[in-house]
Amino acid sequence: MLESKAYDVAAEPSQIKNIVLLIGDGMGPQQVGLLEEYATRAPQSIYRGNNSAISKLANLGVTGLSLHGPADKLVVDSACSATQLATGVASGSEMIGLNRAGQKIPTILQKAKAMGKSTGLVSDTRLTHATPAAFATHQIHRSMENAIAEQMVVSNSVDVMLSGGLRHFIPKDYMLSGELDALETRLAVSGLSLKSKRRDRKNILRQAESQGYELVFNEGQLQDAHSERILGLFANSAMVDGIEASNQRYHGQPSLRNMTQVAINKLAKNPKGFFLMVEGGQIDWAGHNNDAGTLLHEMIKFDSAVDAVLQWAKDRDDTLVILTADHETGGFGFSYSGADLPQAEQLDNLNGDIYKPNYNFGELTILDKLYLQKRSYSAMWKAAKHDDNKPSADKLVQTVNLNSEFKINDADANTILAEQKNAFFKRGHKSLGVKIASKIHDFSPFYVYLNERPLNLIGRALSTKQNIVWSTGTHTHTPVGVFVLGPEHAIKQFSGFYTHVELGKKMKQILTGY
Amino acid sequence: MLESKAYDVAAEPSQIKNIVLLIGDGMGPQQVGLLEEYATRAPQSIYRGNNSAISKLANLGVTGLSLHGPADKLVVDSACSATQLATGVASGSEMIGLNRAGQKIPTILQKAKAMGKSTGLVSDTRLTHATPAAFATHQIHRSMENAIAEQMVVSNSVDVMLSGGLRHFIPKDYMLSGELDALETRLAVSGLSLKSKRRDRKNILRQAESQGYELVFNEGQLQDAHSERILGLFANSAMVDGIEASNQRYHGQPSLRNMTQVAINKLAKNPKGFFLMVEGGQIDWAGHNNDAGTLLHEMIKFDSAVDAVLQWAKDRDDTLVILTADHETGGFGFSYSGADLPQAEQLDNLNGDIYKPNYNFGELTILDKLYLQKRSYSAMWKAAKHDDNKPSADKLVQTVNLNSEFKINDADANTILAEQKNAFFKRGHKSLGVKIASKIHDFSPFYVYLNERPLNLIGRALSTKQNIVWSTGTHTHTPVGVFVLGPEHAIKQFSGFYTHVELGKKMKQILTGY
Repeated sequence: MLESKAYDVAAEPSQIKNIVLLIGDGMGPQQVGLLEEYATRAPQSIYRGNNSAISKLANLGVTGLSLHGPADKLVVDSACSATQLATGVASGSEMIGLNRAGQKIPTILQKAKAMGKSTGLVSDTRLTHATPAAFATHQIHRSMENAIAEQMVVSNSVDVMLSGGLRHFIPKDYMLSGELDALETRLAVSGLSLKSKRRDRKNILRQAESQGYELVFNEGQLQDAHSERILGLFANSAMVDGIEASNQRYHGQPSLRNMTQVAINKLAKNPKGFFLMVEGGQIDWAGHNNDAGTLLHEMIKFDSAVDAVLQWAKDRDDTLVILTADHETGGFGFSYSGADLPQAEQLDNLNGDIYKPNYNFGELTILDKLYLQKRSYSAMWKAAKHDDNKPSADKLVQTVNLNSEFKINDADANTILAEQKNAFFKRGHKSLGVKIASKIHDFSPFYVYLNERPLNLIGRALSTKQNIVWSTGTHTHTPVGVFVLGPEHAIKQFSGFYTHVELGKKMKQILTGY
Repeated sequence: MLESKAYDVAAEPSQIKNIVLLIGDGMGPQQVGLLEEYATRAPQSIYRGNNSAISKLANLGVTGLSLHGPADKLVVDSACSATQLATGVASGSEMIGLNRAGQKIPTILQKAKAMGKSTGLVSDTRLTHATPAAFATHQIHRSMENAIAEQMVVSNSVDVMLSGGLRHFIPKDYMLSGELDALETRLAVSGLSLKSKRRDRKNILRQAESQGYELVFNEGQLQDAHSERILGLFANSAMVDGIEASNQRYHGQPSLRNMTQVAINKLAKNPKGFFLMVEGGQIDWAGHNNDAGTLLHEMIKFDSAVDAVLQWAKDRDDTLVILTADHETGGFGFSYSGADLPQAEQLDNLNGDIYKPNYNFGELTILDKLYLQKRSYSAMWKAAKHDDNKPSADKLVQTVNLNSEFKINDADANTILAEQKNAFFKRGHKSLGVKIASKIHDFSPFYVYLNERPLNLIGRALSTKQNIVWSTGTHTHTPVGVFVLGPEHAIKQFSGFYTHVELGKKMKQILTGY
């Protein structure tokens, strides 16, 4: 009676030609819930009460839940998680494309390429960032973004690469001057900042050009590109955030949705099929910053890319769309509080009962107010700062209140600006090597990105009015949703509760047969 | 190609005879993740690396995710959530069996009864508590537990009721004395505390007896019961917690698993089938208290009941098992921190790479240490208190360190014992009506249960060593997992992303055809 759900690959080996893997970085069920609550219940929802594309995809396909811990630890980072998805093998914290012992494991992208399929990576962060990197490179640590840039190009394994991160592809002290050739002209026209992060004189753009990649640096160049092998770098570091995207402040960049559509159009020309990974990578950053308004906009940005994939894939029987996350970030939640308790209300029922709940369960209008946030907390903080110094309390109040429907006062500002000794100081450490840091009151060891703490504190200052809570400045182990669209015989196995290692194995097996 | 998943009820109306609804109160994906990580990866796991029953059920059936907000708010309480599951209609905060307008809505249990099916409610909290109450009664507020006790019996709609909560069934000032009849003798033998919470002289036990219920008050009496209509009340208030249960300290009570098995055995005798709701209700309480060790044990307790249902149902084609939660409690998460950073390690790979992650991602041995917790934080606090006064710092250190593998020091104890003015004081309020309360440092408006704050603070004191974070003392909106076992034609519709109102509608339609 309960039928076996094992999928006999041998019986249907040629059915699935393409896989589109959509990764919302830091997108736990909490973040998916935020988007869906906004879409369906915000009084002024831009979705007008309709379901999100994520929800539509979920309801056309099957749903799973997946745990994502590293081989030997409880909580995962994006590099390890993406590696496990890409390889189907357990990996170590912060590793790229390696197993726990440090050995290089071929990724699903590399296997697809070896089979003659086309391959693509799209992200709104940097091409060299952990998630895209883990699909095409192998490094002992995610921080080696210069090596990742070079390896990604030299390996020749990715046909379409669209993201930010130019700084890792241009030589140290790079400047445009004198007579510009075609490549340099395209770069100049884009107006991109050119602050290299490389420590050597290697020009990875030239390397890519010599390998036959067409290089593009803004939306127009991308849309005009005629090659099927494209390296598009649209920002020196990260691309625009969700709030900028919602307000059409693209600075010449393509949207995540447009990059996704271009990638699919290019890759789908290969009769042997393709593998494409698309990352909504700044969901994670909004989570780290405990910035709920930006988080909502990042979800909307990603959802638009999901919608593009859904429209393309929904009537196909040769494509698997797998939508998931690498972990949850921030421990985000709407929550009920003891502030602003509800008034008694006379009900219109037969008894005329007096109805008075004990707590504040959060108004739906909060969803609209989150949408109306005009800048990320990060952009607010930058705008409020005086040169490179901390802002005054006045200036901070003014800036936050100009950009958020939720207001702060002087006392809040002073709490945000308060500092303390960093009890976890570690000399030379990337994020912990600072002796004085903003004062987080509870769970401070989990706020390891000391420069972001003022943003976490803005989140706290607004939390009561937002009915929003956060548990951490890093990630949580929360199992993430897996939503899979495709022909029924292929998607059944993605129902249930499993791990990202198992999920990676399943994907690899379906696409490559082994 | 993508086949419609609509389930044609008319075509197969008689297929599903029984529904077992298993509700983990406060069991978000976070809590399910805790259990599964423990079961499969704790070095000393009592599951010996095997999957939890919840995971097994998920992998035999289909999985969904469900949002659970009230009709007009963002965050739900257990009463409203259970009402939405029980009725398939949107409800208001803290309401029992009513729609938002306050009108009584027939529940799936009542509809099942009207069709001649048998019905049951099992919980390890109180029979009158929000979750069981919402399936069989209708009240404007969940706090009306005396009225709920009476209505639950008088309505005659539940055949098997097994839980705690005796205090709402016995008259004010009730005492046993003089010559005891059979009922009183059974009560006396049980040794239960008899502190009534009623304000009237009604004896709901007598009322139940006169309606033909067999009354039982301990495990032995339950196992000997011969009737198919049973009211079992095994504790004056709540039943034993998960840690007591793991240590076989049952005080004569049946386990949640045993109650579940007895209920199924009784109800399954009805050829017309049955509806049974089983609640693991103290998962929520451990979440409210930010008590991770107890949370793990509550999950294990509930999982054992899930296993009993799974064993009974897995080879049947007439039964639907629906396993879900009403909401998430505590914003629980494992998280990575800047404390106790990992040492560099030389890898055994070809390059002999030096490997050194930047953060502490949490050792798997933490899972074993959580299991070894000897008492709940609540029991520790009670044990440490002197009469009814706060414990001394010394006594608190001693008590916590005796009962937990994670240790606190004097400074931690002083932080736990620190108090502040309650900024959300509300005269006469059930939980906020206290002027001085323990000092929560961040997100304090979300710690509304002032008496539980010392427990929340113990959680904070242990959090760094546990790699555990909490976001709230109340609930979060996190979508919860839905795992459904049964014949394939009936379970397909539970795949995807939906709401508890929709889930309630689906259940009702399957069991009753309308």
